[in-house]
Amino acid sequence: MVGSPPPPDRVVRFEDGSYFGFPAMRWSVANFRQLMPTVAVARAGAPAPLPRALRDDIDGISFLPIGAAQPITWAESLLATYTDGIAVLHRGRIVYERYFGVLEPDGLHGAMSITKSFVGTLAAVLVAEGQLDPARPVADYVPELAASGFGDATVRQVMDMTTGIRFREDYADPNAEIWAHARAGNPLPKPAGYVGPRTYYEFLQTVGKAGEHGDGFAYKTANTDALGWILARVTGRSVAQLLAERIWSRLGAEHDAYFSVDSVGTPFAGGGLNTSLRDLARFGEMLRNGGLWNGTQVVPAAVVEDIRRGGDRAAFARAGYELLEGWSYRNMWWVTHDDHGAFAARGVHGQVLYIDPVAELVIARFASHPIAANAATDPISLPAYRALADHLLADPR
Amino acid sequence: MVGSPPPPDRVVRFEDGSYFGFPAMRWSVANFRQLMPTVAVARAGAPAPLPRALRDDIDGISFLPIGAAQPITWAESLLATYTDGIAVLHRGRIVYERYFGVLEPDGLHGAMSITKSFVGTLAAVLVAEGQLDPARPVADYVPELAASGFGDATVRQVMDMTTGIRFREDYADPNAEIWAHARAGNPLPKPAGYVGPRTYYEFLQTVGKAGEHGDGFAYKTANTDALGWILARVTGRSVAQLLAERIWSRLGAEHDAYFSVDSVGTPFAGGGLNTSLRDLARFGEMLRNGGLWNGTQVVPAAVVEDIRRGGDRAAFARAGYELLEGWSYRNMWWVTHDDHGAFAARGVHGQVLYIDPVAELVIARFASHPIAANAATDPISLPAYRALADHLLADPR
Repeated sequence: MVGSPPPPDRVVRFEDGSYFGFPAMRWSVANFRQLMPTVAVARAGAPAPLPRALRDDIDGISFLPIGAAQPITWAESLLATYTDGIAVLHRGRIVYERYFGVLEPDGLHGAMSITKSFVGTLAAVLVAEGQLDPARPVADYVPELAASGFGDATVRQVMDMTTGIRFREDYADPNAEIWAHARAGNPLPKPAGYVGPRTYYEFLQTVGKAGEHGDGFAYKTANTDALGWILARVTGRSVAQLLAERIWSRLGAEHDAYFSVDSVGTPFAGGGLNTSLRDLARFGEMLRNGGLWNGTQVVPAAVVEDIRRGGDRAAFARAGYELLEGWSYRNMWWVTHDDHGAFAARGVHGQVLYIDPVAELVIARFASHPIAANAATDPISLPAYRALADHLLADPR
Repeated sequence: MVGSPPPPDRVVRFEDGSYFGFPAMRWSVANFRQLMPTVAVARAGAPAPLPRALRDDIDGISFLPIGAAQPITWAESLLATYTDGIAVLHRGRIVYERYFGVLEPDGLHGAMSITKSFVGTLAAVLVAEGQLDPARPVADYVPELAASGFGDATVRQVMDMTTGIRFREDYADPNAEIWAHARAGNPLPKPAGYVGPRTYYEFLQTVGKAGEHGDGFAYKTANTDALGWILARVTGRSVAQLLAERIWSRLGAEHDAYFSVDSVGTPFAGGGLNTSLRDLARFGEMLRNGGLWNGTQVVPAAVVEDIRRGGDRAAFARAGYELLEGWSYRNMWWVTHDDHGAFAARGVHGQVLYIDPVAELVIARFASHPIAANAATDPISLPAYRALADHLLADPR
């Protein structure tokens, strides 16, 4: 949406829903705050330095995508996955940084479900501090959820997404609960006659049960919004305030981040965070360093260790992700359990924060892939990340 | 709006309009981005230091408000004017800083019509660079305005608000054009059957003429929105982008600022800027130093000189401001022409950036006075600022 005014056929409006279709999405993901209300996650102090040691040998790295007959290069992979921005840190230095589409270095991009890993990290911090007991049922912290499917789940089951709540995440199914969740969280005035939930919290109280808690991993965004409510009750802070106080203000972030909010100001814990690419990379580098960053132990080392140990691999296997064999999910992080101990935050349409401790590598990537499923990106991006890691290990410079 | 969720009687919603009534306004002015779409004004680099040399003698300064029988103290004046935050810089050091209501040091507050002085400064910068000719008619830059009341006004008349456009600024009159302007700029979906303008630019084309251009100063917000359109056409940048590139990224700001936007992303040039209190103070201190700040000539010294020289005092007198006798308006700044050469940016409900060159004083103040007219605040605040200036001159420390 460019021009004064933009041409009529290029106007992107929140109200008509087309903003999240392709190609309008390529603009929207870098401009969510122009479409909807938001709340700041405040930075503080001087930005933490990110030394630059750019390498010109990365674009040419060649690898074989899963299921492909021919190898492609790293540079080709970025276009094939609709990358909006990518920053690569090796041993704490920026060795590669590119922007495509409409994203710029000082712009913010929707992190989508990378948001969940921030919220899970905050919860793990409160667990490490003894403020949050993962063994207690959700209803102990949020009595309003007692009669919902969440009521008798433990906080740990919510944190690791092993609850048995009734919540289908299939964006391709208009009857899936993910859409009812989106309608409830939409901050625009509701249509006349609308009788459904009007906020995230109201929606969560309508969620039922579709199985037993603890039976297996099942990726359901509503778990993160429930966790956000729990954190708000434990701390008296919204997840936006909590993220600002505990992490963002201590990270040496360049820009205030932000969350989208519902009509009563509740941040969208399941996917509403927006950050700059470099600030996302700083968060990853902080975790790669065991929480010690910018002269501060930003999160306890025990939290990073707990994420890296991962979750229940058998529980994860029951979700049936063909491309993620052997992985697990812990504190809302995806843990590969590969020989590099890599772990990742992942968001729909190709968002990723990928941390490879052995290769001393952090990859922050924003994207706007037309397909709302990471299975569209993974066959290219997962081998790309590993090829980059192996390349850096072989030629560290 | 506090709590998870906030109690029903404390919920503030954009759609019902009550957000800008008192007392809801005390929350809204510090949280506009939670109510409406916005666009960032990006910061960059390390924050410019603001050394602190707090003084405990300011609260007790006593002065006589205009029309009052008894003097009051500086501390009392802050409560009487519904101050949300105030920072005082003397010789570049913070000597006083207070927050009230819900504003915090890392929060942003609506600058309201202080916004105009930012836009006027940007226009003056382009004039100084020869990119914008103040003698040319508006229609030369924005042909869409040719048939409107703006068409044959000069850019200078717009910059100094001496156009004869038909635009009543009276917030107490529901039929005043300021409300049609607000409806057009409101980014929410329009009600069924609405046939009026849907953006700021569409509104500006409906503005007629009610007098001769150049006849006198008349404070009309639409002038600033027209100037914003002119700047967008000259530079290919929105006022938000232009402010970021020319000033905010070079000011050592602590936080990204932001503008509210209409439904096609046009920033509200007449009043949509939100900043942190300290960043507003940095902008003032930059101007007090003739544009040289943070190791950079942020705006040309000639621009600051042009503001300080002021506008046509006879033209200003015709507007009939009893409390502002002898003042003028230039480049969207209010110029006192007092013996201190003080000049100010002013916004409804008590916003001010007050610069007193002789006293080496900058006052940045955010407020949420229930009455939408500075005449409600001026009888207290104008003598307060002068008393503070005199106090600092007498006891500089």
